[in-house]
Amino acid sequence: MSYYDANRDRFLEGLKAFLRIPSISTLPEHQPDIRRAAEFVRDELQQAGLDGVELIEGPGNPLVYGEWLGAPGKPTLLLYGHYDVQPPDPLEEWKSPPFEPEIRGDNIYARGACDDKGQTYILIKAVEGFLKTEGKLPVNVRFLIEGEEEYGGKHIEAYVASKPARLQADAAVICDTEMFAPGLPTLCVGLRGIVYLELEVRGAGHDLHSGVYGGVAPNPIQAIAEILTALKDRDGHILIPGFYDRVRPPSPEERAAWARLPFNEEEYKSKEMEVSELVGEPEIPVLERVWARPTLEVHGIRGGFTGEGAKTVIPARATAKISMRLVADQSPQEALEQFRAAVQKVRPRGVSAEVRLIHGAAPSLVNPANPFIQASAKAMSEVFGKETVYIRSGGSIPIVGAFNQHLGIPSVLMGFGLPDDNLHAPNEKFHLPNFFRGIEAMARYFRLLGEQ
Amino acid sequence: MSYYDANRDRFLEGLKAFLRIPSISTLPEHQPDIRRAAEFVRDELQQAGLDGVELIEGPGNPLVYGEWLGAPGKPTLLLYGHYDVQPPDPLEEWKSPPFEPEIRGDNIYARGACDDKGQTYILIKAVEGFLKTEGKLPVNVRFLIEGEEEYGGKHIEAYVASKPARLQADAAVICDTEMFAPGLPTLCVGLRGIVYLELEVRGAGHDLHSGVYGGVAPNPIQAIAEILTALKDRDGHILIPGFYDRVRPPSPEERAAWARLPFNEEEYKSKEMEVSELVGEPEIPVLERVWARPTLEVHGIRGGFTGEGAKTVIPARATAKISMRLVADQSPQEALEQFRAAVQKVRPRGVSAEVRLIHGAAPSLVNPANPFIQASAKAMSEVFGKETVYIRSGGSIPIVGAFNQHLGIPSVLMGFGLPDDNLHAPNEKFHLPNFFRGIEAMARYFRLLGEQ
Repeated sequence: MSYYDANRDRFLEGLKAFLRIPSISTLPEHQPDIRRAAEFVRDELQQAGLDGVELIEGPGNPLVYGEWLGAPGKPTLLLYGHYDVQPPDPLEEWKSPPFEPEIRGDNIYARGACDDKGQTYILIKAVEGFLKTEGKLPVNVRFLIEGEEEYGGKHIEAYVASKPARLQADAAVICDTEMFAPGLPTLCVGLRGIVYLELEVRGAGHDLHSGVYGGVAPNPIQAIAEILTALKDRDGHILIPGFYDRVRPPSPEERAAWARLPFNEEEYKSKEMEVSELVGEPEIPVLERVWARPTLEVHGIRGGFTGEGAKTVIPARATAKISMRLVADQSPQEALEQFRAAVQKVRPRGVSAEVRLIHGAAPSLVNPANPFIQASAKAMSEVFGKETVYIRSGGSIPIVGAFNQHLGIPSVLMGFGLPDDNLHAPNEKFHLPNFFRGIEAMARYFRLLGEQ
Repeated sequence: MSYYDANRDRFLEGLKAFLRIPSISTLPEHQPDIRRAAEFVRDELQQAGLDGVELIEGPGNPLVYGEWLGAPGKPTLLLYGHYDVQPPDPLEEWKSPPFEPEIRGDNIYARGACDDKGQTYILIKAVEGFLKTEGKLPVNVRFLIEGEEEYGGKHIEAYVASKPARLQADAAVICDTEMFAPGLPTLCVGLRGIVYLELEVRGAGHDLHSGVYGGVAPNPIQAIAEILTALKDRDGHILIPGFYDRVRPPSPEERAAWARLPFNEEEYKSKEMEVSELVGEPEIPVLERVWARPTLEVHGIRGGFTGEGAKTVIPARATAKISMRLVADQSPQEALEQFRAAVQKVRPRGVSAEVRLIHGAAPSLVNPANPFIQASAKAMSEVFGKETVYIRSGGSIPIVGAFNQHLGIPSVLMGFGLPDDNLHAPNEKFHLPNFFRGIEAMARYFRLLGEQ
């Protein structure tokens, strides 16, 4: 009987204690709980036998650091997770209270069970197993656990950008993602980047009355509509010159692998998204559209009158929030410049247009042949008894970009959540077999890397 | 020396007393002032020698009524003005306090000086002159002075719609508009109508994350942009099928007359509107574009994220406020139906669209050959020493539609404001020569109508 098998009950009790702390980072009144959760992680790392364990204070919630560097010549992994959670609202939809973890069937229900306390705990317990039984690890590890993931705090990025020597590593392991389907070991090897910007269009020097001036006055909202439709056609093709030039298409093997994934388009459409039909580039398969194609999306427009009733104003200006999701090998800077040039080209008469960058992040794509990916896939396949699939994600995980940009290391997105784990929603849960298999797979991963 | 000449000082003192009452209808704390202003008008009508003078109470601010019907066989005029005023903000921009009328040069400065206390007072004093000197009027008159014009209250429309016998008249005289240029007697013979509506577009059943679903999710804001640009081209041509079918073009004489008006397009563009260029149908002259052409204008869009920073939401729905300005002989009902049909036709895939009417008003156009218009033009020409010009207005004056719809009478828009009178702005003023000439012109109008 392994250490992991022998300690299942203790691991569960520890996880429950972690889950009882309402460490909601978006609500200021939970600051004491944030600190309690950070201290909980610090204590766990200490008890697991790590060295140099400490809270890293800074502008924001504390980071928790711990290391074990006793395997010279072996790879060093930077292990990432987060101890903060989303708010639990709406409370009335929870079957058991969000901060009183309850096991029902194969699942443990609580806010943060999967995202990300359960998965952070996997990292800690996998390391603990080695140190308690063998007194050493097959690889070197550095833990960096943050407490601002759910509200987009910048503490960890600022810290990583400062490139402290103690973060030197060969690869990062991010334990905060999902498997494509239950029982299907999954590695996410690509993330879309993003350019998020604000487009401000100005017409007249002051708001105008549409009775008096309607017919000759430039309308900045209409102008934004004209710009948006000039930049993207109704089939989702982006008309910004040069925009697709650097888009690297998935390989035929990748496309074939995606086509084999257990994907139910009808369910995705009707149950998950609740839409009448999927839109966008009709010639591109659905998963490729969201994983490997860039987008141009408007998120909101401000300007004019939006209250109850009627006001016949032609506003002097209007502002739109717009993002472009980018895929390898597009660059945020180049996409921004292309966007700016295109806006000036399609801008209608009578208005000026200004584009302001809000934030940008590069896309990332790891070659599945990368040895850190290969070992991870092998470890997961062995533990789950199925071949690991490679997927991508349409979203951006900023820390992946930060690790790449500042530390020059790839990230291995080794996640054990399930699509129905209700992340950010009531009745969040973690599938307990995935919790225990996750610990096992992580331990197996360390072993495989140590043997290389 | 006429009564009007002999009483100039008294008229001015009376107007000042009227202007000192801060009867701001949009601010509830000024309700006592509203009543004081209504009572002021009531007392003035009584002192002028009118009969049946009373406040008409109802749902809103009191209407003031008074009549003189001692000219059997002669026309009856319904005389309209309003005693309420706009708020004076921003206060610090006034050179003299807004409710302490001050004469500087040829102008009297105060909130409401022109809009509409000064012009309402013209009606009262013109009638008073006849009754005090001759004991009778050449025509019959009924005053109906309201106190909700500046906030769009519905008391007067509800009262008119109830068609009381005491409102029977042959024409209405509305003393609440402007002259096209200083010294240029002006009659406005056409007003645009309006259909104001809300367009709601729905995509997914719930907000979606643009990282996860961007590329396949319908975006209601983009959909509104696509609908708006499909309904109007970049040159301002409205593409709604059948929309222009009933548009009655101005006559060649009217066009020629407009072309002769003292209109400075450069000043209109740069100083009045503060735009870099005028837009809209390039083949149509500017004044015709705003007076005699219908419009489709978006006033605001609600939906998605419009706060500071970034949120990558694809909203489940978005709502736009849209109006169509209509010209003779378009009908609000038909335009609404055409809009609805066009929206369904151009609506993109993946979204539903609903159109809700907020309010509508028919356009109005009076034939300049109408005898009430002819007499008015003659009276103004005689007093101002210039030929009266006929213009239209791009806006809507709801009471004109109500008089037409419920009482079946045309409105004569006989106004003495000037383009630089700062209506609704700091330092509102009334040109005193226009005040006195207005009284004279109104008296002359009554005389001419009585002689017909």
